[in-house]
Amino acid sequence: MYDVVIIGAGTAGLSAGIYCARANMKTLVLEGNMYGGQIVNSPKIENYPGIQSISGFEYSTNLYNQTKSLGAQILTKKVLKVERSENSGFEWKVITAKEEFETHTVIIATGLVHRKPDVPGALSFEGKGLSYCATCDGAFYKGKDVVVFGGGNTAVADAMFLSNYCNKVHLVHRRDTLRATGTMADTVLESDNVIFHPNCVLNSIKADENGKVSSVVINDKVDGNSYELDVKGIFMAIGQIPSNEIFEGTVDMDDAGYIIADENCLTSAEGIFVAGDCRTKNVRQLTTAASDGAVAAIAAIEKVMAGRS
Amino acid sequence: MYDVVIIGAGTAGLSAGIYCARANMKTLVLEGNMYGGQIVNSPKIENYPGIQSISGFEYSTNLYNQTKSLGAQILTKKVLKVERSENSGFEWKVITAKEEFETHTVIIATGLVHRKPDVPGALSFEGKGLSYCATCDGAFYKGKDVVVFGGGNTAVADAMFLSNYCNKVHLVHRRDTLRATGTMADTVLESDNVIFHPNCVLNSIKADENGKVSSVVINDKVDGNSYELDVKGIFMAIGQIPSNEIFEGTVDMDDAGYIIADENCLTSAEGIFVAGDCRTKNVRQLTTAASDGAVAAIAAIEKVMAGRS
Repeated sequence: MYDVVIIGAGTAGLSAGIYCARANMKTLVLEGNMYGGQIVNSPKIENYPGIQSISGFEYSTNLYNQTKSLGAQILTKKVLKVERSENSGFEWKVITAKEEFETHTVIIATGLVHRKPDVPGALSFEGKGLSYCATCDGAFYKGKDVVVFGGGNTAVADAMFLSNYCNKVHLVHRRDTLRATGTMADTVLESDNVIFHPNCVLNSIKADENGKVSSVVINDKVDGNSYELDVKGIFMAIGQIPSNEIFEGTVDMDDAGYIIADENCLTSAEGIFVAGDCRTKNVRQLTTAASDGAVAAIAAIEKVMAGRS
Repeated sequence: MYDVVIIGAGTAGLSAGIYCARANMKTLVLEGNMYGGQIVNSPKIENYPGIQSISGFEYSTNLYNQTKSLGAQILTKKVLKVERSENSGFEWKVITAKEEFETHTVIIATGLVHRKPDVPGALSFEGKGLSYCATCDGAFYKGKDVVVFGGGNTAVADAMFLSNYCNKVHLVHRRDTLRATGTMADTVLESDNVIFHPNCVLNSIKADENGKVSSVVINDKVDGNSYELDVKGIFMAIGQIPSNEIFEGTVDMDDAGYIIADENCLTSAEGIFVAGDCRTKNVRQLTTAASDGAVAAIAAIEKVMAGRS
């Protein structure tokens, strides 16, 4: 029997846990995998305000320990479903394979997953030149050559962002024209240091002696040729997928599967709140996830306290 | 000539500076007082995700150094006005007493000021038992007696929040009834460990041998009596004031003087963004200020880059 059950132990979920625990809420955090979320594999974080430089693993471990030391319970259990509770006095139950947890409130903080490059061995380059966030990691490649894969708005924004301080930015898209439209797409295509490669797909990634990215080979689907691009950084912008299927029918989502909420983190279901990358929003960064965690927690705490009257 | 001028070097402004500098923007942060904003006087922060425990001064200094080391320029200058620039090529100018700074974009991050207790010597208790944020500092008073001054929604929410884990919560209001309405006000008044003192005002704060709060004396304006309340913590919830007068006529504000913006941090003026406590929002915490800094910076960066085409 809990005041708050938080689903997900990434930055949003653990931040919510900190706020709930400090408010003396009986707090449970459930996580299906390892704590930390996506950032845990990041070798270096330098854009989290207040921490000059830290690895994703160390940051996540600090956050985990902070949440735990304040009194939140954290369990490794995969959540299967959230349902209305029949038990009078508790409004929701959170169902895992072997257990059910009754609770007054739920905070969904399940994050999202980036679509990964579909070539053998690619994932071994994560943290060694392969990134999913130009805003986060682009600054590590100042003056160097990089490649962006994708053709949508994110890919174009990433290419533009990187062209600002990288030497050369290759933009590789599997179709003949960009899906992104508007002035930003035009600007990118006209930019001196952006080279657009239409109709091309990733063939392979080559490593230097330290296992870091040294080049990528792309295949042109039209003329059948292969090209090797010497790059230090690969930015994949081919899509991201929230993992909210289990909440379908419980809270409202948009077509892409994000839970609909504004900065107040309220969902369509009373007593269920949402925090971090899994909700509708424009900017997905560590600090926006942490902020959501605080906001969702404060909303949940108010709901629990109001229910005690 | 700058890409971004940021007004205010608190958490929101410095976080924006981090993002702008990492994106290779020519970035200037202007601050009229000391860097750090309100948090700089806080003896202990334990609700910032990723940092277990830190003083406000150390946190602010880390943030300042982080921003500076990434290449942002930070100057101590009081901004008097922001105006459209006549200089073609730059859209805005930020005016201080002796200088003008031309820039493509402006981020306003001026924070707010809490209304302070109006008795001699009161401010010496800041960081020694006198606080302006129950969500932030309440957890330091678990099991202890505290007092909340105020009668509005914040005061009632603070009293309710504190009643959850403090031994006894005195709620002192200068009028005979609470200004706050609705179920939360009723709940607070009915709560076993909340004692409401209507028609009372703060007379003085007494210190223990370490200079920390040991009690407060309040005066009942109706019967003329004085009462001494033994408390370890004093939470002032008598109002907060944004410092946005200089932006009147430049960006839209609400009646209370907050700059109107949602989580995307866009103001009514193109090229001016707003971050942190000085904008309209429900939750004002370190982490929500940091988040706004990132969001406003990303918006400003996109604007600058679009303008280069």
